[in-house]
Amino acid sequence: MLPPIELLNFLKKEDNFLIATHINPDGDGLGSAIALSTALKKLGKETVLLCKDPVPNQYRFLPGQEKFITFGSFQPSAISHQLFRNLILIDCNDIDRIIDTSKTSNFSLPTSYFSVVIDHHESERPFGDIRWVMPDSAATGLMIFYIIKALGIQITEEMAVNLYSAIAVDTGNFRYENTTPEVLRVAADLKEAGAKSHVIYRELFESWSGGRFDLFMKVLNTLQKEDGIAIVQVTRRMFEETSTSPDDVEHFVEFPRIMKDVKVSVLFREIEDNCYKISLRSKDDINVARVAEAFGGGGHKNAAGCRIKADFETAKKEILVKVRALT
Amino acid sequence: MLPPIELLNFLKKEDNFLIATHINPDGDGLGSAIALSTALKKLGKETVLLCKDPVPNQYRFLPGQEKFITFGSFQPSAISHQLFRNLILIDCNDIDRIIDTSKTSNFSLPTSYFSVVIDHHESERPFGDIRWVMPDSAATGLMIFYIIKALGIQITEEMAVNLYSAIAVDTGNFRYENTTPEVLRVAADLKEAGAKSHVIYRELFESWSGGRFDLFMKVLNTLQKEDGIAIVQVTRRMFEETSTSPDDVEHFVEFPRIMKDVKVSVLFREIEDNCYKISLRSKDDINVARVAEAFGGGGHKNAAGCRIKADFETAKKEILVKVRALT
Repeated sequence: MLPPIELLNFLKKEDNFLIATHINPDGDGLGSAIALSTALKKLGKETVLLCKDPVPNQYRFLPGQEKFITFGSFQPSAISHQLFRNLILIDCNDIDRIIDTSKTSNFSLPTSYFSVVIDHHESERPFGDIRWVMPDSAATGLMIFYIIKALGIQITEEMAVNLYSAIAVDTGNFRYENTTPEVLRVAADLKEAGAKSHVIYRELFESWSGGRFDLFMKVLNTLQKEDGIAIVQVTRRMFEETSTSPDDVEHFVEFPRIMKDVKVSVLFREIEDNCYKISLRSKDDINVARVAEAFGGGGHKNAAGCRIKADFETAKKEILVKVRALT
Repeated sequence: MLPPIELLNFLKKEDNFLIATHINPDGDGLGSAIALSTALKKLGKETVLLCKDPVPNQYRFLPGQEKFITFGSFQPSAISHQLFRNLILIDCNDIDRIIDTSKTSNFSLPTSYFSVVIDHHESERPFGDIRWVMPDSAATGLMIFYIIKALGIQITEEMAVNLYSAIAVDTGNFRYENTTPEVLRVAADLKEAGAKSHVIYRELFESWSGGRFDLFMKVLNTLQKEDGIAIVQVTRRMFEETSTSPDDVEHFVEFPRIMKDVKVSVLFREIEDNCYKISLRSKDDINVARVAEAFGGGGHKNAAGCRIKADFETAKKEILVKVRALT
């Protein structure tokens, strides 16, 4: 994987960068952004790491995560123009993914700035003066690895931990179909550079609170199976009863796929009365992004999401009609 | 990792091999034995694959597993001497691990045979005319990979699937501490040779029956936590209620470790009245093999097992005393 020469030249030539990842940040976005920032600092550059939302608890072990500024802590009106001179979007490919301008009062984008996109998601809008979008890459972290190598910067332990985490999150610790031989070899290089994989695994996947475990049991106890479709439900009451929050539901939707006869797994999370956030996971060639898109959401073939404003039974019925049409 | 020259010479020189793996076979033993057998056949050798027990259901996807003969299907008295001329023990290091001679009537070992041991477990007895025992190797499958390479045999898809599965089982799909950079690079080579890792992952870890899922919920509902020690219990009645068998409990003991504050996880499986099989898992440097050894069992630092003849409460109390002494 070779980064575009104009991207490398841009990183070499400029001295100040605003590196931003998406709203509701995940391990790939955060780890990739931190690693790129750390690498650019080795070249004597100034960087600012930006994310609208705070770093979620499960990613607080990432070295350097404390450098992120969030919309709570920075004053957009005061420093935005300077910050936005060279904007690099990480793990997303449109300005709307880092800042919901319609909801952010006290903030206006500068009229002119240079923008770079480094992402592995399918892109819909042609945002970015330089765009490196690789849907075949398992993780943005993999792309950042090649940028750092191409810039001739030695991978430090801090970069290695961040990039390994980014890749581990987006490949389900090397279990998804996107785990290519290249992914495994880069992971090997990152281990040699100081990423302790079993420690990272534990931080990412084995750091549940007791409350989260109790929530998991409550959610799985709601399991219904119909024609290879598993349905589980999370209510606001369950969060209260277990002192947990919506962050704690991450990955739960994947679990019912452990059954051989489950082809699609759907999780309904109650957001407010008669409003559900729906997460979908599938096996093989069942494209649940099609289902999510039908309700104004989106995602990948095997992992997608959307919202429905309806009571649970109605929302379930609507989703099941669309899922059954696929299987 | 370089196989001993005398082992390679033995494999080149001889023409007939009995390749045996241990009682209660696992993915590493089975996959390693099949891959070695397949490779030796490429050199025009004759091989027989032997295991006392049938191949468990979850490993029936391994290509070549149908070639195993078990004590149910073969007549030891008739062919044992010919079979035993060149015995290769895989993933174990003593004759007692492949055949419990004290319990096998109608069978006596020949007085003379040549024996080879290829294993990554700590060895206690010096069995074997040629011994290649590598406790630092994550899996026996890794050692077989290097043997096949050293013999100049190209890795076929069948070998790749078997070796990848062997390594995936013994590294917990690359999440245990034994996942070295070398392990990841060999896995990359095996993917290039035809191992479809996401398919293998699903076969190994995501092929539960509905009954197994129900059993999992029942077992986790018994969870007790005391001082960082998680205790779960499986009764014979639970197997009946879910139409499952003891094989279905595999890996359940690992699950409570998902909680950050759980340092040791213990599963008690009822075998008969007042008799429990106990599985122990731990994090970091807590050596649960010490606990298992105190009750006549054994294992590795982070994974061990033993039996106790007592009622559940007594057995639990005895185990807890030993575990608390470690933590």
